[in-house]
Amino acid sequence: MAGTGWRGYFLSVFDYKTEKYVIAKNKKVGVLYRFVQLAILAYIVWWVFLTKKGYQEVEESIQSSVITKLKGVILTNTTETGVHIWGPEDYVIPPQGEKVFFIITNFIETPKQVLGYCAESSRVPDGRCTENVDCAEGEMVVAGHGIKSGRCLKKDRNSTGTCEIYSWCPVERGRQPREPVLGRAENFTIYIKNFIQFPKFGFSKSNVLKTNDDQYLKKCSYDKIQHPYCPIFRLGDIVRWAGHNFQEMAVKGGSIGIMIEWNCDLDRDYSQCNPHYSFARLDVNSASSSVSSGYNFRFAKYFKNPAGQTYRTLVKVYGIRFDILVYGKAGKFNIIPTIINIGSGLALMGAGAFFCDLILLYLIKQSTFYREKKFELTKKDKSKKDIDGADGQKNPVK
Amino acid sequence: MAGTGWRGYFLSVFDYKTEKYVIAKNKKVGVLYRFVQLAILAYIVWWVFLTKKGYQEVEESIQSSVITKLKGVILTNTTETGVHIWGPEDYVIPPQGEKVFFIITNFIETPKQVLGYCAESSRVPDGRCTENVDCAEGEMVVAGHGIKSGRCLKKDRNSTGTCEIYSWCPVERGRQPREPVLGRAENFTIYIKNFIQFPKFGFSKSNVLKTNDDQYLKKCSYDKIQHPYCPIFRLGDIVRWAGHNFQEMAVKGGSIGIMIEWNCDLDRDYSQCNPHYSFARLDVNSASSSVSSGYNFRFAKYFKNPAGQTYRTLVKVYGIRFDILVYGKAGKFNIIPTIINIGSGLALMGAGAFFCDLILLYLIKQSTFYREKKFELTKKDKSKKDIDGADGQKNPVK
Amino acid sequence: MAGTGWRGYFLSVFDYKTEKYVIAKNKKVGVLYRFVQLAILAYIVWWVFLTKKGYQEVEESIQSSVITKLKGVILTNTTETGVHIWGPEDYVIPPQGEKVFFIITNFIETPKQVLGYCAESSRVPDGRCTENVDCAEGEMVVAGHGIKSGRCLKKDRNSTGTCEIYSWCPVERGRQPREPVLGRAENFTIYIKNFIQFPKFGFSKSNVLKTNDDQYLKKCSYDKIQHPYCPIFRLGDIVRWAGHNFQEMAVKGGSIGIMIEWNCDLDRDYSQCNPHYSFARLDVNSASSSVSSGYNFRFAKYFKNPAGQTYRTLVKVYGIRFDILVYGKAGKFNIIPTIINIGSGLALMGAGAFFCDLILLYLIKQSTFYREKKFELTKKDKSKKDIDGADGQKNPVK
Repeated sequence: MAGTGWRGYFLSVFDYKTEKYVIAKNKKVGVLYRFVQLAILAYIVWWVFLTKKGYQEVEESIQSSVITKLKGVILTNTTETGVHIWGPEDYVIPPQGEKVFFIITNFIETPKQVLGYCAESSRVPDGRCTENVDCAEGEMVVAGHGIKSGRCLKKDRNSTGTCEIYSWCPVERGRQPREPVLGRAENFTIYIKNFIQFPKFGFSKSNVLKTNDDQYLKKCSYDKIQHPYCPIFRLGDIVRWAGHNFQEMAVKGGSIGIMIEWNCDLDRDYSQCNPHYSFARLDVNSASSSVSSGYNFRFAKYFKNPAGQTYRTLVKVYGIRFDILVYGKAGKFNIIPTIINIGSGLALMGAGAFFCDLILLYLIKQSTFYREKKFELTKKDKSKKDIDGADGQKNPVK
Repeated sequence: MAGTGWRGYFLSVFDYKTEKYVIAKNKKVGVLYRFVQLAILAYIVWWVFLTKKGYQEVEESIQSSVITKLKGVILTNTTETGVHIWGPEDYVIPPQGEKVFFIITNFIETPKQVLGYCAESSRVPDGRCTENVDCAEGEMVVAGHGIKSGRCLKKDRNSTGTCEIYSWCPVERGRQPREPVLGRAENFTIYIKNFIQFPKFGFSKSNVLKTNDDQYLKKCSYDKIQHPYCPIFRLGDIVRWAGHNFQEMAVKGGSIGIMIEWNCDLDRDYSQCNPHYSFARLDVNSASSSVSSGYNFRFAKYFKNPAGQTYRTLVKVYGIRFDILVYGKAGKFNIIPTIINIGSGLALMGAGAFFCDLILLYLIKQSTFYREKKFELTKKDKSKKDIDGADGQKNPVK
Repeated sequence: MAGTGWRGYFLSVFDYKTEKYVIAKNKKVGVLYRFVQLAILAYIVWWVFLTKKGYQEVEESIQSSVITKLKGVILTNTTETGVHIWGPEDYVIPPQGEKVFFIITNFIETPKQVLGYCAESSRVPDGRCTENVDCAEGEMVVAGHGIKSGRCLKKDRNSTGTCEIYSWCPVERGRQPREPVLGRAENFTIYIKNFIQFPKFGFSKSNVLKTNDDQYLKKCSYDKIQHPYCPIFRLGDIVRWAGHNFQEMAVKGGSIGIMIEWNCDLDRDYSQCNPHYSFARLDVNSASSSVSSGYNFRFAKYFKNPAGQTYRTLVKVYGIRFDILVYGKAGKFNIIPTIINIGSGLALMGAGAFFCDLILLYLIKQSTFYREKKFELTKKDKSKKDIDGADGQKNPVK
């Protein structure tokens, strides 16, 4: 042995230790092993790195800001309201151009409501009664319009009537129109401007074509092939691409999702990162069941007459709510996921070697021979001078 | 040696090389090693794969759309406003049924405001004055209601008054009511419809029970055990489940979060993926300090009198804002995370072997012996015929 | 060999097998190998664990709730509208204090519109005409204000006129003011309260300083160094920090993003997790092109005259939209990513050994010698008693 004490130990730190290998000249196992190695290499290079981009760090938290603007004008003529011209300031709720907005396609107006006593609507279950005692004074009508006064109003003695209530009278009675009043909203156009950023990579982009042509955005319309950077869509087209019919949906209302997907490979050029639009109806699960179909809500416009008394117009609107959902991910080369995937690949190689070892040592004809070559036996009561062999025989000194 | 030149090299590529092992018949280290192997295997199988689902690819970017609808009617009677019936069209702001909405529980109304000159409120620090010079003409009152006119209005010479301002007069003075005016909003019910999708897996679902029963959703109420798919909640229950009292919260207002968590294992059946509701008060950090407690804002309703002059009603509303926060993740089997976790487990096995090697080679009694067996010394000036041994002695040819 | 049959096999399971190593006393390769090992160790410890925090599990899905409140009063005086005092109830749309809100900085009012027939605006391309036949009766004016009546109105025979339309008359004509009418909105202040939680770790925090001082939040203003926990910002400062000028932006409007980033190491103290504010203009890509610059929308206020006839005021508002975008991530120690990164590091060590092996076996002077020492040849037709040597020669017993 070389050296003494610390010096020897220190020098031995710089000895290079390498595993000893046994060469088994068995072509079958050798070919199988090379084949396994090639398969694992092909998997790592082609599947993990090229297809799944395993060398990239991925960010899925996209920051998005959406601005929308509707255009289109429509004229309606109803019995209660007469003629009315609807512009975006009327049928878009809310009007600020946000990413969630509602387009009125159908409505029921109950004008000139004032506070007072009148009969509850017969369509409210809790408002029905046969005797005065059914209407407890001061009690709120469940899912109704007012507070019960204590009297039951009915046409004649034997019929079922409804409670008299203190509420905004007359109570809303209109039957929902069968045809959507604003059915021609189908021709309205929406302009969607989407600005996104991936903060982890400091990358940001917008979906609008940079152009010097003032008139381009005023005349173009979205087309997947010819005008992919003109984010102006016709409402009827959006509903059609979602797989539904605008006129049918417009009767009771519904909910449409406009999905904007940004799938960006930031190792490529800036211009390669573009949005992909898709459309789906979001209240679809209930399209067959009538329990939760449609979309409607109510709002009221308040006025004061010359006497200073308040009166209001109650409007129940049905319509299509558009939800613009922006999602996506960006990937960029990063050393850590690369190392992790390479490391896992190397571990797989080790598993491949383990598998071939099994075949060599246990399954082929000469397995016993190779086992003896691979595993060197040691006995702890032998002297240091033993020559290693399969059965540890001693060579006696002559 | 086999062959010559290229042919020999080519054939040698298909030789199978396997590491040579030394068998140390030391039962203690052997048992320890098997134990370490079992422990690592148990960790991989039980913790990584079964508990943490390490074989799954996870998506955390859930796409969500929420539609809400409130029901309930309430009657109020105040000095300034008189009697008023409040329906969802009045107390829900905004009325469209979005995922963030505000319920009015308390309010201060200042009706019949017209533009003119009047005294600033004494509660505004920057509006207080003792002399006219304190009120610079044309200057805006900081956190106040109007523009200073230059005069200081006070009751008598020695007291402190407030600046005269040009503003909507009379200025809002009302003290906040101690009892919430719409306190019975506690009984209102909210219906939350949530549609989610995980775009990476093309999976989508809604939280509403598919049913043919028209009346189910009109009568049921959420119950964790009996009606988990009836997303209709009573407002008072929501605040109670968040750990607070509705009546206390309703005085100054607050902010409640309704969390809907979707934790889906997509390797299981579609029906196994269900939402979990939880509730929390979101402005809770300030509940103890009065600096930022409560939630209020103001809006104005504009009217014109017969002369065409504009007047308005200023309404300061206090209430509870509900934020519906949808989050979750979906997991599905994928080969890449499986390989990565298996690979890391195998690397751990290697660490286990390294640890047992340390014990065998340095810590037990026969460690020197095993070290000599494991490490085969080579000297670079010896001939090829040397027999390997611990001290590299030559066996002379007799 | 020890034992027979099953007992022997069972005992052999507890034999400890360790790889056999060959010590090559080549200091150059040994030093190189130690250097490679140190480099890999330094990479793992310093880069993966300390810098990139590879021992942590990361959650990127932050749950956030934002409440905002504007303060500031302004006086305007225009030809159409006269004097008007604007408070937050007037210029903030919507007024509820949500995370997306719009501040009016400029506007065009068209008061006293009633339904009737009048000329379309000459600025609408589809409304221009030379003959009556250009205005098809009942047709909607594309991007216009009403429905064509069939007549073309023009000053004299040879000029171009516009179609007569049925619409809210008079049609909006006003030219956009060159100076922003509410330019002094620059001095308004916004208070942003942000509550976040990381559900995976059950961690939640707010960005407002907990204080017993009632007056702190009424007087402080955000300062990066001195008052980092006072989230009250002056609008002009926000636009300036975003790199733009408020007065310029206020003419046509625009979109500003207020980014609140929470980057939390949950292994540290609770007080170390604080938000970082940054500001950017979101409609910036179009700042140079006039095609999509600015931000505006329209809304209408409806009134009824004593006769019950409806008239309205159409308001086109320009302004700055503020989007508060909250994002972030939290990391906490977790055994699984630690193991994965350690495992990958160990696999790298193996690659380092492979690299040094290449040098030892093929590149240095004594490479042939070391190759023979490392790879032990076996021939499958030799008897078990062969002594292993480079060329497998038999030593005959004398």
